[in-house]
Amino acid sequence: MPPIVSIVGRSGTGKTTLLEKVIGELTRRGYRVGTVKHDVHGFETDRPGKDSWRHRKAGAATVVLSSPDKFAVIKETSHEWTVERLISSFVSDLDVVVTEGYKKGPFPKIEVLREAVSRESVCATDEKLLALASDFKLKLKKPVYDLEDFIGISDLIVNKVIKPHKDATVSLVVDGKVVTLKPFIEDLLREGVAGMIKSLKGCSKAKEIEIRVRKK
Amino acid sequence: MPPIVSIVGRSGTGKTTLLEKVIGELTRRGYRVGTVKHDVHGFETDRPGKDSWRHRKAGAATVVLSSPDKFAVIKETSHEWTVERLISSFVSDLDVVVTEGYKKGPFPKIEVLREAVSRESVCATDEKLLALASDFKLKLKKPVYDLEDFIGISDLIVNKVIKPHKDATVSLVVDGKVVTLKPFIEDLLREGVAGMIKSLKGCSKAKEIEIRVRKK
Repeated sequence: MPPIVSIVGRSGTGKTTLLEKVIGELTRRGYRVGTVKHDVHGFETDRPGKDSWRHRKAGAATVVLSSPDKFAVIKETSHEWTVERLISSFVSDLDVVVTEGYKKGPFPKIEVLREAVSRESVCATDEKLLALASDFKLKLKKPVYDLEDFIGISDLIVNKVIKPHKDATVSLVVDGKVVTLKPFIEDLLREGVAGMIKSLKGCSKAKEIEIRVRKK
Repeated sequence: MPPIVSIVGRSGTGKTTLLEKVIGELTRRGYRVGTVKHDVHGFETDRPGKDSWRHRKAGAATVVLSSPDKFAVIKETSHEWTVERLISSFVSDLDVVVTEGYKKGPFPKIEVLREAVSRESVCATDEKLLALASDFKLKLKKPVYDLEDFIGISDLIVNKVIKPHKDATVSLVVDGKVVTLKPFIEDLLREGVAGMIKSLKGCSKAKEIEIRVRKK
C-alpha cells in the first residue's frame, strides 16, 4: 500500500481547493497521486441519460465502464468499505494517496481551518495531526501553514509522508477486512504465493500476483 | 467469476435499451446483475465542478469516492484492462455480468440488429453467438428474437448462461493477466492460500480471501 495522508476539516473550509493544489504540485514533482473522498451523504457520479447511468437505473448492482486508457466503476456494497480496503484494491500502484475526509482515520492528517467557518480545530489533540492549514493566525503545538501555501504543504507531505514510507509488498484482505501483517508473515505469504504459482504456464517470472479465493 | 454474456451489435441498433430491459427483468427475478460497457472512444463520468472531477482535473491518476452504500472509482491505466480482469476485480460477487460491447470477446453473445442501421449480422459466423435480437424478420441458423422480447431474451440468459454456470472459487491475476486454472490447480491454490493464513489472527474461519503480492 502506498503512504496515505488525510486532508480533514469542517465542511466549507476549502479542503477540495487545497487538495486540488496539492495534487497538482505533487503531480508536477513526478509523483503518481491517488485520492479517496469520503462522502457520508452519498454521491452521484453520472449524468442522467448516459449509458452507465441507464444500467444503474435499471438495477445493475455494479457498473463498469472500460476504455483504452481508463476505467470507471460504480459498485453497491452491503457495508461501507474501509479506506484501507479501497486503497488496497484500487490505488496500490501509486506513490501516495491523499484522502479528503476520514478525520477519524488512522492516517497522518492535515486539518484545514477557515475563520469564516470556525476558529476551533477538530483534530488538535489527534496525535496523527501533522499540521494545520489556516487562513488566520493561531497558536498550537503543531505547525500551522497558511491556507494558500500549497508548496509548503506539498513539501510537508513529501518529507513526512512519502519519503519515510517503506512500501509493503503484500496485502491481505479477509472477508472484507484488511489484515495487518508482520514483516515475517509478509515474507512468508509473498514467497508462499509466488512458489505456488511458479510452475503455472506464464507465471515463472510473475512480478504482481493477485489471488481471490472463496471457500465453499 | 460469474457467468458473462455480451450484448453486441452495430452502433445505433439499441443495445443499451435492450440491456436496460434485460437488467430490469433479471433483477426482478432476484439475480444480482453487473454490467461492463466497452467504450473504445473513452468516456466522461463526472460533472464539471464535482469534487471528484476536480481531483482528476488536478492530476490524480486514480479517484475513489466512498459512501456508506456504494463507491465509485475512476482509474487511469497504462494498458486497457481485459474484461476478465475487470470482472475478477469488481464484479466477482454477482450472479451474472452482461457486457455491452466486446463483440470479439470469448463470451456467449446476443447480437442486436436494427433494419434502419443494417440488415447484416456482424457475428453470424461466431460460434459463441447464442441468438439475435432483431426488429425485422431474418433467417439464420441461430434463434432470432424480436428486439422487443426482453422476457424471452432474459429466459435465454437464465437458461443458457446463468443456470449452466459452475462458479470457479479461485481467480488468479498475474502481471495484469487472468490465468486460466484447471480444477486441480484451483483446489490446490484455494487450500494452499487458506492454509497459509489460517493461523493469522481473525483468519481461521476466512470465507473470502484476497492476496496481492509484489515481488521485489
